[in-house]
Amino acid sequence: MITGKNYIGNQLSAIGNKTYTTFNPELNEENTTVFTKATSDEINEAVALSSEAFKEFRKVSGERKAAFLNAIADEILTLDDLLIQTYCLETGLPEGRAKGERARTIGQLRSFANLVAEGSWVEATIDTAQPNREPMPKSDIRKMLIPLGPVVVFGASNFPLAYSTAGGDTAAALASGCPVIVKSHPMHAGTGELVASAIIKAAEKTGMPNGVFSNLNSSGIDVGQQLVSHPNVKAVGFTGSIKGGRSLLDLAAKREEPIPVFAEMGSINPVVILPKALENRQKEIAKTYASSIALGTGQFCTNPGLLLGVKSDSLSSFIKSLSHEIMKINPSCMLHPNIKKGYINNKEKVISQANISVTANYTSEIKNNYAEQAIVSVTGKDFLENPTLHLEVFGPFSMVVQCENEVELESIISKIEGQLTGTVISDDNEVSEYSEIIAALQNRVGRIIFNGVPTGVEVCESMVHGGPYPASTDSRFSAVGITSIKRWVRPFSYQDWPNNLLPKELQDDNPLSIFRIKDGIRSK
Amino acid sequence: MITGKNYIGNQLSAIGNKTYTTFNPELNEENTTVFTKATSDEINEAVALSSEAFKEFRKVSGERKAAFLNAIADEILTLDDLLIQTYCLETGLPEGRAKGERARTIGQLRSFANLVAEGSWVEATIDTAQPNREPMPKSDIRKMLIPLGPVVVFGASNFPLAYSTAGGDTAAALASGCPVIVKSHPMHAGTGELVASAIIKAAEKTGMPNGVFSNLNSSGIDVGQQLVSHPNVKAVGFTGSIKGGRSLLDLAAKREEPIPVFAEMGSINPVVILPKALENRQKEIAKTYASSIALGTGQFCTNPGLLLGVKSDSLSSFIKSLSHEIMKINPSCMLHPNIKKGYINNKEKVISQANISVTANYTSEIKNNYAEQAIVSVTGKDFLENPTLHLEVFGPFSMVVQCENEVELESIISKIEGQLTGTVISDDNEVSEYSEIIAALQNRVGRIIFNGVPTGVEVCESMVHGGPYPASTDSRFSAVGITSIKRWVRPFSYQDWPNNLLPKELQDDNPLSIFRIKDGIRSK
Repeated sequence: MITGKNYIGNQLSAIGNKTYTTFNPELNEENTTVFTKATSDEINEAVALSSEAFKEFRKVSGERKAAFLNAIADEILTLDDLLIQTYCLETGLPEGRAKGERARTIGQLRSFANLVAEGSWVEATIDTAQPNREPMPKSDIRKMLIPLGPVVVFGASNFPLAYSTAGGDTAAALASGCPVIVKSHPMHAGTGELVASAIIKAAEKTGMPNGVFSNLNSSGIDVGQQLVSHPNVKAVGFTGSIKGGRSLLDLAAKREEPIPVFAEMGSINPVVILPKALENRQKEIAKTYASSIALGTGQFCTNPGLLLGVKSDSLSSFIKSLSHEIMKINPSCMLHPNIKKGYINNKEKVISQANISVTANYTSEIKNNYAEQAIVSVTGKDFLENPTLHLEVFGPFSMVVQCENEVELESIISKIEGQLTGTVISDDNEVSEYSEIIAALQNRVGRIIFNGVPTGVEVCESMVHGGPYPASTDSRFSAVGITSIKRWVRPFSYQDWPNNLLPKELQDDNPLSIFRIKDGIRSK
Repeated sequence: MITGKNYIGNQLSAIGNKTYTTFNPELNEENTTVFTKATSDEINEAVALSSEAFKEFRKVSGERKAAFLNAIADEILTLDDLLIQTYCLETGLPEGRAKGERARTIGQLRSFANLVAEGSWVEATIDTAQPNREPMPKSDIRKMLIPLGPVVVFGASNFPLAYSTAGGDTAAALASGCPVIVKSHPMHAGTGELVASAIIKAAEKTGMPNGVFSNLNSSGIDVGQQLVSHPNVKAVGFTGSIKGGRSLLDLAAKREEPIPVFAEMGSINPVVILPKALENRQKEIAKTYASSIALGTGQFCTNPGLLLGVKSDSLSSFIKSLSHEIMKINPSCMLHPNIKKGYINNKEKVISQANISVTANYTSEIKNNYAEQAIVSVTGKDFLENPTLHLEVFGPFSMVVQCENEVELESIISKIEGQLTGTVISDDNEVSEYSEIIAALQNRVGRIIFNGVPTGVEVCESMVHGGPYPASTDSRFSAVGITSIKRWVRPFSYQDWPNNLLPKELQDDNPLSIFRIKDGIRSK
């Protein structure tokens, strides 16, 4: 049952008078549930509860946090069809995607549960005392990672489950011992409330303190701004546009106590197609890339928005094939009329620039809120000179850049803004001849892919989802994978602390049997 | 031989017309060498060389980087008496301190050399492919840490060697593969140039690219500002005042591409003295703390500037003993007349606040630039209500706060600004009765010390030197110890990349024999 209310800790609350609804883009109509925007008092109450909960939650054992995370996963599964249906009604995304994303969300929660149940993630490091060292005795010093405090997570429009209410940011923060306040995404507030209810149930069942989680409704930017400015909030997670992420980063930087903001933002994910690959496999590559560009109506942050090659007959044929292939794909629904409007505006903006050649642009009749896929092409020189062409067009759109030669290609790669991914399409050994281009690409991205597509972000320990600005606000962290927990923790040292008062992770006899570094040696 | 010039890469350069000298505070006179401030062109040239050097330096093997770092240590030792004498002439610090700090600097360089020679620090993580996985095949993904790019390091006034030219920030950045541009501290520009010459010699001897290191003279703030604003600079290290660190953080946050600034700033390092310890050991504690407060003329970032206890006869006696003990210590020289002036002003500012009781203030005749130690005391209520009393008084000064009761003590601890350290002085089991106070203290500091003094920062892997703002700008990192390398690196993933083109750290057969996590299992 969706109430339209906020969760202030474990209490449903709707004292405000600003309301909004979600939208069904497939049917092109408002959904019926009315959501009440959180008031300033409700926000303050959520933060106060969160600070209070932190005092207890930060000391909760890994085993109990694991039980909490697993219980969230279980409760999400219990929501069953209601969750899947709500997801589809609020996003226009198909049921298969909803189920896939739910599986990913569950998988993330369980992988963090395993991480904290095992316990070695705290990087326990012990340097034992040397009381007789000359000229100065050495103290006993022991270090481990501890949570920062209340974390605010902004739900993402394009991942209602995996990067929203109980998504990667939330799972990582809860695993670390940080309470979470979610600023629910207004486009899927119902999905958000359902997942929030699962988290609250799980918190109650596993005895977590009230305030460990809150979910705040918001249709504007003021709720998020108040949260990020609140002195008791200690970190922020965000997935969305460059404009949105940057404004939060700026807000956090202006605080009396600046706090870390990890924002995963825009990316056009450059793909370099090397000459022999183009010559030998242009049709196959075109087909693969048409699919990747249109996947999920192009609404992935890893969507390949920029394809680069050196001018040749093969490249010209590739552009034709790609344009042909993408026109064969049936248009699909976008998340919301506003997303569709943004897509149209940005596409038109790019197309209206000088010397842009439009090689595909779907024009047949389509349903409301469906997206017309398009491919454009431009010379390397024009691309280099016009930063408007570097902007992300969020949707089923890609630009092919025809470079004069390899030098120009390298120059473009070197000067491009930071990106989540870079891809190289190569015939077997061809890539080894382009080491400077590869080095330049590596310097601009967080992940480099060989003969694949950037869409499809595997959730695993070795994944980096992040990259130089503006792909993310801090390239030193990843938003995906268990190491993303490091965004929400800090190292902490105990000096000469009594053994029985140390946390178990640092006690002499290693009661948790975790991997630790003791006097430089790593062992269990 | 000190030239007074800048090192723009390996070239000495002094094209500017603004000059300055260093100052001998012991003799109260200017030193003779004239230093030429770097010009805007020289700054740009240093950054350009640095960016170019990064292309090569980022690929240099751990073994070769280790040789470079060890060569720096060797060259610093070769400077011998000239370095020690210059250090003393520019700081007023005694020879023993100079030699101790040199040993620390050498130790840091060699520990980073060992770290990168061994190689496991890159956190290599491999998830192998599962081509037959359902519903989607899994790619081969491999991750490791890579350097960010050119790093700007600001020399610290109070650590001319260990936190300046070849200090912790520089050693960590070079170890990671980042070129370094040092903004030399004007108070010890000669010491800085000597150490810079050692780095340049080491770079040449070990075949590092020109531009891997530059050293820029500056007597104002504009050189640092231009460096931090330069688009090719990718991170900043700073040790100094809150005002200085915050202004750099703000500048970096306003860039088109914001960059990480790790600033280690002010701290008053609260010390909680529990009742039984006060009762049983007040004289001993007073003696120990008088020494710690006056150590190095109080010019350590871990100086204990705030002592807290609950009102009692024992606390009153402690204040008397501490005041008595500190007056027995011979005053010593401060680093520079400006530092002395700052000490006088800040001390007067505190003393002039309402309800401050001055229990010690050295008034006998002393030499120019020597510091008059002082102890003041105040009630918990007054301390809580007056934020001016929370400011750091850089020098041999400390404030005793007499709290009404334990509740007030906890309230003060909870509300205090972020600190590098917190200390608890306790009789054996007494501490276990104060778990809430300890928890509150832990939440405000980076390191907690039992029955010791905060001065004396051990350089080891388990050390955290950093803490919640304003102790540092990002509590997620430490400025001391080998893990401080993480400030200058980012994770990077390779997906399905050909084995022979992967860096050695990630190749199938583990040619460097480093610890790696492969499919979740850690091994060599």
